[in-house]
Amino acid sequence: MSDQAAVLFANDAFYVAFMNHDIEAMDDLWARIPTISCIHPGWNHLLGRDLVIESWNSILANHDGPSFTIEGAMANIYNDMAVVICYEEFKMATLVATNIFVREEGFWRIMHHQASASPPPPVSGENNQVKTIQ
Amino acid sequence: MSDQAAVLFANDAFYVAFMNHDIEAMDDLWARIPTISCIHPGWNHLLGRDLVIESWNSILANHDGPSFTIEGAMANIYNDMAVVICYEEFKMATLVATNIFVREEGFWRIMHHQASASPPPPVSGENNQVKTIQ
Repeated sequence: MSDQAAVLFANDAFYVAFMNHDIEAMDDLWARIPTISCIHPGWNHLLGRDLVIESWNSILANHDGPSFTIEGAMANIYNDMAVVICYEEFKMATLVATNIFVREEGFWRIMHHQASASPPPPVSGENNQVKTIQ
Repeated sequence: MSDQAAVLFANDAFYVAFMNHDIEAMDDLWARIPTISCIHPGWNHLLGRDLVIESWNSILANHDGPSFTIEGAMANIYNDMAVVICYEEFKMATLVATNIFVREEGFWRIMHHQASASPPPPVSGENNQVKTIQ
């Protein structure tokens, strides 16, 4: 599997854990380095594994959360780091996310996530590969 | 100068160019790699040097834009890449930003920027170093 495919797979796994409310998988998918960080829409930043994982535990505990699909995921690799941009399409709103990954022990794990309100993803364009995982 | 100080300096330079409407400096501060990207608040993502620089030219051409200060900038370094989180405090609103930097030819240059609506920055806390550049 190419690095790009592996990173997009890790990005998919992150959203599958999100959609499935899978707290254990979500914990496992985040990098082990102490400086992981997360900016949920409308929240202050969270820095450090304890705060980040605690936030996901709280979000995933809500089984009534809206479903969404992922579109337009694109990955750029820089040695052992990667930056993914993708769109989170909810029924009533769209978010655009920056997801940063780091290669740890051969696995690409997420180390930073920021999602924020956005117009719908561009319908087409050379920079966009539409990829839906639900 | 430590890597961390150098990255925070590059982050300051990015915002000084922004505040001073300095299109030339802004162009110079962005990395030369072709995959730079930018997500302005409420915009779709922009990928590639032409689109990113064009967007800044358009934003910086508006000399009536509101002034702001930068608070809470913190940098984490990963070899030749760095992730900065900071707050952009406008009079009527706060944005939180993820800025990714890459070391090119010895210089830290910005390669990705996402800014989005946020509560005001935390007043204190071990994860926050308050740094105001205006």
